[in-house]
Amino acid sequence: MPAHAAPRPDHASRRAALRALLVEAGVDALLVTDLVNIRYLTGFTGSNAALVVDAWDGAEDRTLLCTDGRYITQVQLQVPDLRAEIARASAPRLVELAGEWKMGRLGFESHVVTVAQHQGFEGQATGLELAPVSGLVEQLRMVKDDYEIGRLRAACAAADAALAQLLERGSVRPGRTERQIARELEWLMFEHGADAVAFETIVAAGPNSAVPHHRPTDAVLAAGDFVKFDFGAVVGGYHSDMTRTVVLGEPAGWQREVYDLVAAAQRAGREALRPGAACAAVDAAARGVIDAAGRGDLFVHGLGHGVGLQIHEAPGVAKTATGTLLDGVAVTVEPGVYFPGRGGVRIEDTLVVREGGPELLTLTSKDLAVVG
Amino acid sequence: MPAHAAPRPDHASRRAALRALLVEAGVDALLVTDLVNIRYLTGFTGSNAALVVDAWDGAEDRTLLCTDGRYITQVQLQVPDLRAEIARASAPRLVELAGEWKMGRLGFESHVVTVAQHQGFEGQATGLELAPVSGLVEQLRMVKDDYEIGRLRAACAAADAALAQLLERGSVRPGRTERQIARELEWLMFEHGADAVAFETIVAAGPNSAVPHHRPTDAVLAAGDFVKFDFGAVVGGYHSDMTRTVVLGEPAGWQREVYDLVAAAQRAGREALRPGAACAAVDAAARGVIDAAGRGDLFVHGLGHGVGLQIHEAPGVAKTATGTLLDGVAVTVEPGVYFPGRGGVRIEDTLVVREGGPELLTLTSKDLAVVG
Repeated sequence: MPAHAAPRPDHASRRAALRALLVEAGVDALLVTDLVNIRYLTGFTGSNAALVVDAWDGAEDRTLLCTDGRYITQVQLQVPDLRAEIARASAPRLVELAGEWKMGRLGFESHVVTVAQHQGFEGQATGLELAPVSGLVEQLRMVKDDYEIGRLRAACAAADAALAQLLERGSVRPGRTERQIARELEWLMFEHGADAVAFETIVAAGPNSAVPHHRPTDAVLAAGDFVKFDFGAVVGGYHSDMTRTVVLGEPAGWQREVYDLVAAAQRAGREALRPGAACAAVDAAARGVIDAAGRGDLFVHGLGHGVGLQIHEAPGVAKTATGTLLDGVAVTVEPGVYFPGRGGVRIEDTLVVREGGPELLTLTSKDLAVVG
Repeated sequence: MPAHAAPRPDHASRRAALRALLVEAGVDALLVTDLVNIRYLTGFTGSNAALVVDAWDGAEDRTLLCTDGRYITQVQLQVPDLRAEIARASAPRLVELAGEWKMGRLGFESHVVTVAQHQGFEGQATGLELAPVSGLVEQLRMVKDDYEIGRLRAACAAADAALAQLLERGSVRPGRTERQIARELEWLMFEHGADAVAFETIVAAGPNSAVPHHRPTDAVLAAGDFVKFDFGAVVGGYHSDMTRTVVLGEPAGWQREVYDLVAAAQRAGREALRPGAACAAVDAAARGVIDAAGRGDLFVHGLGHGVGLQIHEAPGVAKTATGTLLDGVAVTVEPGVYFPGRGGVRIEDTLVVREGGPELLTLTSKDLAVVG
C-alpha cells in the first residue's frame, strides 16, 4: 500500500447526496458515464465504466456499476459495496438493464454523452425516458470532504517540497535549460510522494515567462531572467496547482514593480475568497488591483479554477463566471501580468474556501526569490 | 527548438485529403472539435480550438481555426497558413460564422460533440443544416505519412534506449519496488529524448504480472519473478507502446513455456500484418496459437490497437474488429497469457503495416531476458 494511504473516502455518502439532487432534477435514476464522476461516486479507476444510480434506492440494490472483463478483479477490490455488471459496451448495457428494471425517467450526462452515444442509447432504451441533465456530480465535487482535502494537502506538499529542493540545491541557474529544470522538478515531485504530475510542468525563462502557457524548451536560462514555474503533483487522484516566479540575480526595477503588483492582486484575490462570494467578484477583486495600475490589458486570463480529481474543474473563477463559492470549495488564485517579448509574472496558490478565511494549501513563500 | 525537430508535417495535404471525404459524406463543410484531430489537420496544440474545413475551398479562404485570447501568439506561430478567429466559445462561434457564410450542410463530429454542445449549436446554426458524421479524420489518421512515421520511430527509439539502460545498469533486481523501477524507466525515457510518457508506465512483478493493467505499487521484486514492463514515450506528439516481460533469475519450466507460447503468438500476429488483412484476422492469427495450446481463456484482451497522436486510436485489432489494414497503418501487436495469482507474460511491439512485411519500430529483443 502506498505511503500516503489514508482513510477511505465515503462513496456511499456521496451517492446519497447525489440522490437528493436527482429527485430535485426530476429523474428516477442517473446514468453516469464520466469516468472521473464514476471514480468520485464509487472509487473505481478503470478506463471503461458506466454507473446507474437509482434516485429512490437507499439500499443500493438497484445501483449498478458496469465495466469490462479486464477489470473483474479491480472492480471487486475497489467497489465491494455495489453490484458489478461485466460488459464491454458498459453504458449501452446499463441503459438496457435500466429498461428491463423499469427505471422510468433515466437522466444522462448531456455534457458528457456524445450525439452518437445518445443515438445508441435511444435504441436500447425500451420503456425508458432518457432525460438530459448536466453537471450534477460536478456540483457535488466542488465541495471537498475531509478525505479529499487531505489528498489535496498531500499533493500540494509534494509540490512545495520539490520546488524547495530544486532551489536549495542550486538547480535553477544560468546555463541550464527549461526542459532540464522541468524534468528535475517532476522527478523531485515523485521523490516527495507524487503518484503523477498534475499537468505538463511549465518552466518559462526570460521572454518565455511572458507566454502564459509556455511549454519548456531547450532555451537556456540567463542572468536577469524571470523564471516561472507552474506545476503540480497528483496524490491519490487529487491535483495540486502552484505557480511561482523567481528572478535570476538582482531584480531590475521593472521586475520588482510587476512582481509586487501581481503579488498584491493575488493577495486581494485570496482575501476575497469566502463562502457566499460570487466567483466573478473574486476575479474582480484581483483584477481591480491590476486595472488600477493600468496593466489590466496584460492580465489575459481568468483568475482561477476549481481543482480536485481534475486539474481544472468547477467552479471557474473568472470575469464571466456565474457561480458562488461554498465552504469547502478548492480553487486556485493565479493572476498574471505579461509583457510580451520581455517577461511576465504569475503567482498561484491552491486554497480551500472556509468560513474563517481560506486555508492555504500551497505553502511556498510568495516573497520574490532571488536565485542563482 | 527541441533536438528532435524534423521537417514540418504537411497539414495542407491532410486537409485536402479530408475534403475528398467530405464530398463523399455529402457535407459542404466539417466542424472539427476533437483537439487531436485539429492538431493533425493544422498543427495547433492549444487546449481550446475548433476548426471549420470547407469541402469546396481549395484556396482555404473559408477554412477557419478558432481559439481564445491565450493562444493568439501560439496560433500565429503554429498555423500561419490559416485564418484564425479569436473567441472563447470557439465551436459555437464557428457555427455562427458558418451560418453567416452560408456554408449549407455543416457536418459535426457526432462521436465527439456532446448532446449539450449540440443543443447549443442548434441555437447558433441560422440557415445551416447540421449533419452528424463520425470518424472521418480518424480514418485519415490511421495511415501515417513519412513525417509521422519518423516521430513514431523516435518515440520507439527513446523507449528502447531507456529499457536497455535500465537493464544494463542493474536497476531491475530483487529488493527494488515496482514504483522505483517505473519512475526510473520514465526518467530514462526523458533522458533519451521523450517529451512525455505515453501513458502511466506499468511495472508488474511476480503475481502482479498476471494483472493486464497493473499500476506500479511498493511491491518488492523477488528472485524468480516475472517482471512485465508496458511503457512508451511521446516524441513530437507521437506515442510508442512496447511491452517486454523478463524473469529475475533462472526461469522455471512453466515460465519458459508460457513465454514461448506468447512469443509464438506474437510472431504469428506480426506475420499476419499486411495491407488488405482484416483486423479481426490478425487477432485470430495470434489467438489461434494460444487457443491451440489450450490457454485461450487466459488471453483476456484484444491483440492490439492503432497508435499515433493518441496511444489508442483506430484501427482496433481484436476479435470483434471490423476494419481492414492499409499500407502505412501503425499498430501494436500484444498478446498475453495470464495465470491469476501466479504470473503472466505479454510481449508487445509497435509496427507499421507495409506491402513487403511490417516495419518493426520497437527494436528491443524478444528473447526471454534473464535478469539480476
